Amino acid sequence: MTTRLRIAFVGCGTHAGIAIYPSLRYAPIELAAVCDLVEERARANADIFGAGAVYTDYRTMLDRESVDAVFVVGPPDLHREVALEALDRGLHVFMEKPPAEDLAGARAILERSRATGRHVMVGFMKRFALAYGKAKALMSDPGFGKPTHINAKYCHWQCRDLHWHLIYMSVHMLDLVRFFMGDMERVHAEKCVAGGQHAFALAVKFKNGASGLVGLTAMEPRVQERVTLSGEGQMVEVDNLVDLRVFGREQRGIGLEFEPEDRFWRPDFAIPHLQQNSLFLQGYAGEVQHFAESILAGREPTSNIHDGYKAMQLVEILSSTDGETVPIPDD
Amino acid sequence: MTTRLRIAFVGCGTHAGIAIYPSLRYAPIELAAVCDLVEERARANADIFGAGAVYTDYRTMLDRESVDAVFVVGPPDLHREVALEALDRGLHVFMEKPPAEDLAGARAILERSRATGRHVMVGFMKRFALAYGKAKALMSDPGFGKPTHINAKYCHWQCRDLHWHLIYMSVHMLDLVRFFMGDMERVHAEKCVAGGQHAFALAVKFKNGASGLVGLTAMEPRVQERVTLSGEGQMVEVDNLVDLRVFGREQRGIGLEFEPEDRFWRPDFAIPHLQQNSLFLQGYAGEVQHFAESILAGREPTSNIHDGYKAMQLVEILSSTDGETVPIPDD
Amino acid sequence: MTTRLRIAFVGCGTHAGIAIYPSLRYAPIELAAVCDLVEERARANADIFGAGAVYTDYRTMLDRESVDAVFVVGPPDLHREVALEALDRGLHVFMEKPPAEDLAGARAILERSRATGRHVMVGFMKRFALAYGKAKALMSDPGFGKPTHINAKYCHWQCRDLHWHLIYMSVHMLDLVRFFMGDMERVHAEKCVAGGQHAFALAVKFKNGASGLVGLTAMEPRVQERVTLSGEGQMVEVDNLVDLRVFGREQRGIGLEFEPEDRFWRPDFAIPHLQQNSLFLQGYAGEVQHFAESILAGREPTSNIHDGYKAMQLVEILSSTDGETVPIPDD
Amino acid sequence: MTTRLRIAFVGCGTHAGIAIYPSLRYAPIELAAVCDLVEERARANADIFGAGAVYTDYRTMLDRESVDAVFVVGPPDLHREVALEALDRGLHVFMEKPPAEDLAGARAILERSRATGRHVMVGFMKRFALAYGKAKALMSDPGFGKPTHINAKYCHWQCRDLHWHLIYMSVHMLDLVRFFMGDMERVHAEKCVAGGQHAFALAVKFKNGASGLVGLTAMEPRVQERVTLSGEGQMVEVDNLVDLRVFGREQRGIGLEFEPEDRFWRPDFAIPHLQQNSLFLQGYAGEVQHFAESILAGREPTSNIHDGYKAMQLVEILSSTDGETVPIPDD
Repeated sequence: MTTRLRIAFVGCGTHAGIAIYPSLRYAPIELAAVCDLVEERARANADIFGAGAVYTDYRTMLDRESVDAVFVVGPPDLHREVALEALDRGLHVFMEKPPAEDLAGARAILERSRATGRHVMVGFMKRFALAYGKAKALMSDPGFGKPTHINAKYCHWQCRDLHWHLIYMSVHMLDLVRFFMGDMERVHAEKCVAGGQHAFALAVKFKNGASGLVGLTAMEPRVQERVTLSGEGQMVEVDNLVDLRVFGREQRGIGLEFEPEDRFWRPDFAIPHLQQNSLFLQGYAGEVQHFAESILAGREPTSNIHDGYKAMQLVEILSSTDGETVPIPDD
Repeated sequence: MTTRLRIAFVGCGTHAGIAIYPSLRYAPIELAAVCDLVEERARANADIFGAGAVYTDYRTMLDRESVDAVFVVGPPDLHREVALEALDRGLHVFMEKPPAEDLAGARAILERSRATGRHVMVGFMKRFALAYGKAKALMSDPGFGKPTHINAKYCHWQCRDLHWHLIYMSVHMLDLVRFFMGDMERVHAEKCVAGGQHAFALAVKFKNGASGLVGLTAMEPRVQERVTLSGEGQMVEVDNLVDLRVFGREQRGIGLEFEPEDRFWRPDFAIPHLQQNSLFLQGYAGEVQHFAESILAGREPTSNIHDGYKAMQLVEILSSTDGETVPIPDD
Repeated sequence: MTTRLRIAFVGCGTHAGIAIYPSLRYAPIELAAVCDLVEERARANADIFGAGAVYTDYRTMLDRESVDAVFVVGPPDLHREVALEALDRGLHVFMEKPPAEDLAGARAILERSRATGRHVMVGFMKRFALAYGKAKALMSDPGFGKPTHINAKYCHWQCRDLHWHLIYMSVHMLDLVRFFMGDMERVHAEKCVAGGQHAFALAVKFKNGASGLVGLTAMEPRVQERVTLSGEGQMVEVDNLVDLRVFGREQRGIGLEFEPEDRFWRPDFAIPHLQQNSLFLQGYAGEVQHFAESILAGREPTSNIHDGYKAMQLVEILSSTDGETVPIPDD
Repeated sequence: MTTRLRIAFVGCGTHAGIAIYPSLRYAPIELAAVCDLVEERARANADIFGAGAVYTDYRTMLDRESVDAVFVVGPPDLHREVALEALDRGLHVFMEKPPAEDLAGARAILERSRATGRHVMVGFMKRFALAYGKAKALMSDPGFGKPTHINAKYCHWQCRDLHWHLIYMSVHMLDLVRFFMGDMERVHAEKCVAGGQHAFALAVKFKNGASGLVGLTAMEPRVQERVTLSGEGQMVEVDNLVDLRVFGREQRGIGLEFEPEDRFWRPDFAIPHLQQNSLFLQGYAGEVQHFAESILAGREPTSNIHDGYKAMQLVEILSSTDGETVPIPDD
């Protein structure tokens, strides 16, 4: 009886070590083997995270190890390459975003996944961030009502170039907006270019009738992330991933009577538990749990390769648009 | 030697009594007479705010009183009507926004003001709100750099209808966005309609090259107002008019070294002084001061009828647009 | 039939003009006359706030004007002097805090008030501040439970000397603590003296069994005011008079399930109404309303001269104590 | 050449697994062996955190393994027992707080540490929390000036009993207050007892002349932790471990001119790096780093057994005092 998912892990870089490897222990996962081009890094991760075997060639690892799934965290073309190889070997795949270096790459993985019947999850961890998960749940409350509007902001320091800006940073928010509001009917993008950096202003019409604003800039001090979700009856806001506010029933009028009716949540950082653990706050632990539990249960995970493909569609649109209104394809 | 501006005031309604009359005492103004269709209200305001004469017909008041300027706070068509009458009599005018019930009305006042050489100020008090004034000044700091992006939000409870929503509420933010970022090249508006209420999502391209997002919805609990201004070097945010934050030089990297470099200001509500006085926080006192000082000095006030005309241009566009991109006329 | 309280006002200084005069219009009050040693100031206030007569000698004013009550806002010895005179004339009194320059002065007013059967209200406006009033009401909710603890802080810039620090600033918080928690059994005060300024740390045992902390320092940048009220079931915090938070039922455990159960309120500064009017936020309008309504209804106002006397008791204790524990007298 | 500290770890409970084991990887530490009475737990930790050997008896582990130091995380009597055994074997010790079940136990370890010349660090991780470390550094800025006052609050949900409340929870804040302000001259404690739970209000006089307030209650919803540090020139506040504010030079006066001069820092939770990693935010990673680096460099770590002894002194005082003022012994 399989109760833990046996995995092989490709990639031992900094990001994987900060975010993904430490998340494995919170999921029903057994780390069988790790692989990195630099053997020393692979060995260090095996020591720290308790893997049984170390490889420098992922194909050799997949030849020798008997696993259920492959994790891959590295450059986008590695994601695509390993994913296709793993799918062909009948393995499920967890990959960091972006799923590939371009839309065609994402398309190839999507089709291979459908052809092989094996699942590919793309690591849009923000969907699994504690406060965003709660915000999504709150949208299902009858009190929230029909979604009407979103204002989403993901602004940060300078990026190497526009492609880097879009596929490594903006792609997160493009997926998150779709997670909350569903598919888009059309998007209109305005941009400011200064010093080689871009500031995008997107006005969106969603298929569900809602309107939305998305700001994606690479000219900010620090990282500014905020999502405001409006429904007919409530407004839910998450700022900096840890400040969740729910504004409730209408409080109108010029009188002095008031009740402190609006609600909030913030983590208790003064005490060590999972609600303040950054792996859970940011969603890394949650996405890894979701993948493992989905595969073990024979279900397709959400934040799958189709979600990755839809996010890459928007990346491609933003790569070239300038003041145009673009309809979003249905595929 | 005139050191105080002598004024006659048309309109003694609730809003005028909350916001404009109590602001007069902070400006070099002498309130000569007040006028309201309801004599009792006019008399009450004369008592409370120390006016010497009371009228129920504004033309009679203007016939009899020797004043420098007229204040008018009432319905939009009254603004237009009184303004035209006052200009023809050689008087300056301070009027609450909106300047008129439609763009043509604003145009008429603009032309009469030019023809008579008399000034008309439109009460876009947010320009004079304490924190917004400071934000505008901070944009002139060399450290702020070239403006690149704005995210402005003015969301509130339900309005009677779309026209009311736009001319009484949205018009404030439409002017404020122009105050910070200058004239627009084009605007693209998406809207959601639910229960007769509207949620606008605007993507804007400014003439200075910046991109911007403006959210204007009438479906929120309470009033949500926030403006985020990005320059090449800094970001300035004002939330709820009283929380001012300045995010400074880039703080990148994954190390643990940090300095608390970002700056903030909030009013000290624990002590009575002008910095927490709501008339100053919201800009009412400031706009009245500015009007009186400008007229006394023979200068045209800012937030004048041309600004009012430009705001009404946007109101007219939003009244009819749906998913279109509209170039902004230059006049 | 009297429906408005007719008053004479002694004192036309800056503070009165910022806080008390503009509050009169929100109460059922008719301002009959104003008095100041400087006639020009008296005349200006009469103009601005609509008084019918102007005096430079308060006894003359009380001789000539037929009023129900006297307001006095000036130095502490003037408060005492005018209060005694007014009581002897059968008039009720509203006075700014402190009620007198020392405990004996407050005692004299207290006794004269009892002897004449006329009411004296002391302007501890913080009791009437919007958020504190709500906090007090929340303490009556069954969910709050028995009060167990208070942490109150009133810290501010440097004062002229210790006496000034205590009677003009600390006296506010000393009264407010008693407003929330009732009478004290004993107080222990530690102090730090630096540069002629004092930082008091008070541990308090209340008669109701609760424990409390009070910080009163005159060495801070800006004004820092915060009150945290704990009951067996809830915690209520008011920061800077405008951020009200209610922490509810116990939320323990290390799991990831949470509801945004804690509640908050803040004023909507984006819109002009009474909930953001500083006169209401700070309690000036409320205290004046309460005085007028109480006198008109024949009831003694709260925040009366006995409350003032109790606050002055603490001022006197703090004037001389250093590391001692002092029982609070019952009178 | 030793560049990594070789350690054996006693205790594989929940807390150790959440906070201490995951911190080892950020320090120059090699985890040689783990020990727990429950073999399965020891084996799980060896797998997850990469230890080479597993034991169920710590004396056997210390007999067989060649290590530099022992970590012990368990009940207080285990801390004492293992520490004494390890010191006698010439090993250094890192122990979770509290150092022992009572003051005598802490005294015994302190004396054994001095006798053997081996170091014992007590895990007061709050000293190493990111924002507290920065606050301590800010106190050394010339602008901060002489420390004058502290207001420290550590309030939380109900505890099993008073002893538990004090040795597991309050002990943290008692040490942290001493970390910031130095040794105490005397402490006066008032307490409220309700439903078997305690709310302590402490007024403290420090040897450096400062005054202080410490609130320690076990009747709150959630965990409320806040430290405010006042110096002659600045005030530094840390709320909930992640909101750091520095209030600077005096900003007095009733004018409208202001600069956003006060500074703040908060972690960027939107991006995975060490500044938002809960192990660093809370100080677990920092204390483990400090221990390893100190021992490798031949230095005594701070937060040592003497610090633990001083914290236990206060615990003992609070265990029995009720409204008394207690001088703090110098030892």
